Amino acid sequence: MEGTPQRPSHTAELLQDILERARQLPDEGRCADYIPALAKVNPDYLGIAVAELDGRVHIAGDAQVPFSIQSISKIFGLVLAMERVGEPLWQRVRMEPSGQAFNSIMQLEWEHGIPRNPFINAGAIVVADALVSHFSASRSALIQFIRQLANNPLIHADDEVWESERVHGNRNAALAYLMKSFDNIQSEVPAVLDHYFYQCAISMSCVDLAQSLSFLANKGVRGGSSDVVCDQRSAHRVNALLSTSGMYDQSGEFAFTVGLPAKSGVGGGLVAVVPDYGVICAWSPRLNSYGNSHRSMFMVTTLAEELGLSVYN
Amino acid sequence: MEGTPQRPSHTAELLQDILERARQLPDEGRCADYIPALAKVNPDYLGIAVAELDGRVHIAGDAQVPFSIQSISKIFGLVLAMERVGEPLWQRVRMEPSGQAFNSIMQLEWEHGIPRNPFINAGAIVVADALVSHFSASRSALIQFIRQLANNPLIHADDEVWESERVHGNRNAALAYLMKSFDNIQSEVPAVLDHYFYQCAISMSCVDLAQSLSFLANKGVRGGSSDVVCDQRSAHRVNALLSTSGMYDQSGEFAFTVGLPAKSGVGGGLVAVVPDYGVICAWSPRLNSYGNSHRSMFMVTTLAEELGLSVYN
Amino acid sequence: MEGTPQRPSHTAELLQDILERARQLPDEGRCADYIPALAKVNPDYLGIAVAELDGRVHIAGDAQVPFSIQSISKIFGLVLAMERVGEPLWQRVRMEPSGQAFNSIMQLEWEHGIPRNPFINAGAIVVADALVSHFSASRSALIQFIRQLANNPLIHADDEVWESERVHGNRNAALAYLMKSFDNIQSEVPAVLDHYFYQCAISMSCVDLAQSLSFLANKGVRGGSSDVVCDQRSAHRVNALLSTSGMYDQSGEFAFTVGLPAKSGVGGGLVAVVPDYGVICAWSPRLNSYGNSHRSMFMVTTLAEELGLSVYN
Amino acid sequence: MEGTPQRPSHTAELLQDILERARQLPDEGRCADYIPALAKVNPDYLGIAVAELDGRVHIAGDAQVPFSIQSISKIFGLVLAMERVGEPLWQRVRMEPSGQAFNSIMQLEWEHGIPRNPFINAGAIVVADALVSHFSASRSALIQFIRQLANNPLIHADDEVWESERVHGNRNAALAYLMKSFDNIQSEVPAVLDHYFYQCAISMSCVDLAQSLSFLANKGVRGGSSDVVCDQRSAHRVNALLSTSGMYDQSGEFAFTVGLPAKSGVGGGLVAVVPDYGVICAWSPRLNSYGNSHRSMFMVTTLAEELGLSVYN
Repeated sequence: MEGTPQRPSHTAELLQDILERARQLPDEGRCADYIPALAKVNPDYLGIAVAELDGRVHIAGDAQVPFSIQSISKIFGLVLAMERVGEPLWQRVRMEPSGQAFNSIMQLEWEHGIPRNPFINAGAIVVADALVSHFSASRSALIQFIRQLANNPLIHADDEVWESERVHGNRNAALAYLMKSFDNIQSEVPAVLDHYFYQCAISMSCVDLAQSLSFLANKGVRGGSSDVVCDQRSAHRVNALLSTSGMYDQSGEFAFTVGLPAKSGVGGGLVAVVPDYGVICAWSPRLNSYGNSHRSMFMVTTLAEELGLSVYN
Repeated sequence: MEGTPQRPSHTAELLQDILERARQLPDEGRCADYIPALAKVNPDYLGIAVAELDGRVHIAGDAQVPFSIQSISKIFGLVLAMERVGEPLWQRVRMEPSGQAFNSIMQLEWEHGIPRNPFINAGAIVVADALVSHFSASRSALIQFIRQLANNPLIHADDEVWESERVHGNRNAALAYLMKSFDNIQSEVPAVLDHYFYQCAISMSCVDLAQSLSFLANKGVRGGSSDVVCDQRSAHRVNALLSTSGMYDQSGEFAFTVGLPAKSGVGGGLVAVVPDYGVICAWSPRLNSYGNSHRSMFMVTTLAEELGLSVYN
Repeated sequence: MEGTPQRPSHTAELLQDILERARQLPDEGRCADYIPALAKVNPDYLGIAVAELDGRVHIAGDAQVPFSIQSISKIFGLVLAMERVGEPLWQRVRMEPSGQAFNSIMQLEWEHGIPRNPFINAGAIVVADALVSHFSASRSALIQFIRQLANNPLIHADDEVWESERVHGNRNAALAYLMKSFDNIQSEVPAVLDHYFYQCAISMSCVDLAQSLSFLANKGVRGGSSDVVCDQRSAHRVNALLSTSGMYDQSGEFAFTVGLPAKSGVGGGLVAVVPDYGVICAWSPRLNSYGNSHRSMFMVTTLAEELGLSVYN
Repeated sequence: MEGTPQRPSHTAELLQDILERARQLPDEGRCADYIPALAKVNPDYLGIAVAELDGRVHIAGDAQVPFSIQSISKIFGLVLAMERVGEPLWQRVRMEPSGQAFNSIMQLEWEHGIPRNPFINAGAIVVADALVSHFSASRSALIQFIRQLANNPLIHADDEVWESERVHGNRNAALAYLMKSFDNIQSEVPAVLDHYFYQCAISMSCVDLAQSLSFLANKGVRGGSSDVVCDQRSAHRVNALLSTSGMYDQSGEFAFTVGLPAKSGVGGGLVAVVPDYGVICAWSPRLNSYGNSHRSMFMVTTLAEELGLSVYN
């Protein structure tokens, strides 16, 4: 793997130490169980990776084991849609933090089918619709985009998870049809959901995720390269959205405690962007009541403290 | 005035230029009119000040004219309460971004009287209650705190505005009594509201505000001094809260566009914290539909762009 | 037509008089326009029929012209489901009046997918699901039931309206998928919606409706016959539901003013049950802001006053 | 006491029998405990009274023991306000059934401070404001009105309950201030609440209540007399409101099961109006989860079934 150091670096030792401390935490929480395919994942997986901007990658634990990235996929979909659709995208989805989960449907109704931001499900479904409407083969376009970013041609969606999402996706269907009733979905709802569930079912490792998102820490340029993924303004915007809305109803607390743009997924993954430094990705499947991984949060929080990383000083 | 430069600095020239451009903007919006005392302010006031961490202050326009700081006062109340009450404060008010204004009362009911964050009215009323319950003379304690921070003993609350707030404060009374019904207000509601309305009625200039909040850009230490106002963690936390929740229902957009912790007030003031650099304060009374000042936002946005200031890179 | 009097009765004269007065009302409101098939109906149609319990029917105006019964069909679906499913139906739908339209989706979420009553769309969709799950051919079962009640084998659903409902049914799809996510829809959502849209598209005349619902005024026995449609308890229950929830967000006002169990549809029809007397059905396509027909309400209200009909004394 | 029969009537025997059956019911539920004064009432009290229109009164159990009428007082306040304020009252309070309790505050906000109906707290507070604004001594006016209706000069408000309501009335204060912020409260909020809490604290017996409300069953004329309390239209309107909104979030179920206009209070009282027959009042302090008395509901339901009383046939 590109960039993996030959010998344990100082950072790698630090990661190993933090990983061990995370392992000692009580076994609170459990895997997401709304779909069988996630519920059966071994809850004791534990991994962390850091991709620095010079291309170096530091790892500890199960950092190379692929897992279901779930909501973290919303970043990839968003960046691709921002690049292709441009400013008109923001007529269809806002950029404001949302309140809590309970009123997501009501908020959508109140705001005439315009979701609060692209990281709540309704917003990500609008983004999916933008991709489905723009590309003749949106799923293929997205997976190619991700493979390039991660420099890993093997990344793919897990068919079992994909199918499982579909079967248990009635709430997302409700959101999509409600937005359709407000004319904020252009393609047919089943096609849009198909893309959305596909993207949630993509499997990547901590290393894949940290490397693929390094452009967010680097003004839009892929870490260790000169590849422009997006312009600086777009990278800034995604980071801003991650800061206010990336961690479900714990986004404010995460900003309060850690102070880094971050995104979690119910597969237990957590990526955090450190501008001018790199990207951290942690993984542990046990979730807290907000749907965020206990141990992933612990590892990212601890690493940020140890290295003095925070955008808020 | 301490720190005002003898000769126009480069920054002062930049401020002057930005101010002139702001003056050319269309006369959209109008003064807050929910209380007569604010409605009669001259809508053409326009000022900006930057307090750098070395103590220098740059100004343009009406930067030394006091105005009603309104919601910007929530920062001072919060910092004082954080210092005195400590962690237990966060049992009574959360740190999550709120959704939009319309459902503030409902959200309060849904969350059993625990406000989403200290920058929505309900949260600031809880903070006011904490101060009223802690200090024998909370209003006096707060104004002394502010005068020290600004190094200006003349700062005071405007009696007419204070009285006007009281007369038109029925919605805030509703919030307070609702929280009282959930046992999240300890003192008597009228006393708490009295403090809250007092704090909203404080008058300060752009220079006062920029100087008094410089500690937020400086890890808790007052700019141009070695006075510790709060510890680094607290400064970080306030900045995080400002980033997600400081600009009403435009907080996300402001992060998206500008990327600085900031707080606005319906008096037309706007302060933005630039970690390791200083604090910007702009003022223009004309408000947009979100209750934020058009021209203040323009000036802060433009300055941030010109100087390349953003926490999100 | 069975029961139509040979000579103008006193009641027929009264109906004619009321109809003429209704015709003089200002041309306020317009046809339902959410689907093209309804928008193009001649807005000047005007008819009224009264079916007394002895089998006599009195008419005036366009009382024999079929129109789209829309939500009035919810009565037929409900009675059929009550007879076939019995008490378990009330585990899936409540019998409480709903608040206003705006929060229908939120209320559904708050109450875990259990609709407030069978006359709001969500509740009628649950009833449709009960029928689809119970009958191998639920649409055929329902139309046969209605034809028997009305003694009119020609009653059918309008294909154009049915198709139109399907195309514009995204909000109902949202409700159905949301309930499905709470396991309160048993069959596949598209099949349930197909039944629901079919039922809304049924065409009947004032005479058809008045005759077919006479059992509600007669303790469950079809007027002018000894045919038991349902037991007395069921007839009572349907009347109670109609009294609290039959007229959208004007249900309370209608009870306040008129005091009769009643149901309206956006096709402009309005049926009112007068216990021990008979059933009134009025029709005029122009709707007020609540979705009720102006002139139909006027005619039923006036007739109820003239004849001293009200259950509340 | 006027109208009490000398010898046990058939109805009295029936009441006694129903009372004994109610006593055998499981001891479910408990007294209202939101204020201490109600919590300490003996939960085993059990009484029922029927006031027929000819002036006869039938009783069983503790029918002559005064209890806190609580929300039943809303009927008296409403009738008095309807007579004095007339139609303009309905500009300030609607006549629609409300949804459930949880969103009462939100609904008030959504509908700009206009409560759904006069039987939810917000609506009764508007009615109280109407009385406070109309009468120089509204509390005195109300108690005199009630004493006349009940022909019992000893009826009064319980000082301990009144005080207790005030101390625990923060939620009602929140509703009042919210409505004040929408200009739907004219007098000062503390004065309005004082009246409202006073009226809730009135003590009456089953006999008092049944007799005093007999005019609702008699087209506005006091039973056993020719005293006109209100016109027939007003009596009809109050009955309609009671039918859709008198039993909290069990109003629909009560209509479904019993079919009589009725009002309950958290003191355990329940009055039901039987047009052209009389008024039933039952009392037992144990409440169900909706705030209605288990045994009072049982007694009224059973009596209505035995006597074949229902407005819905």
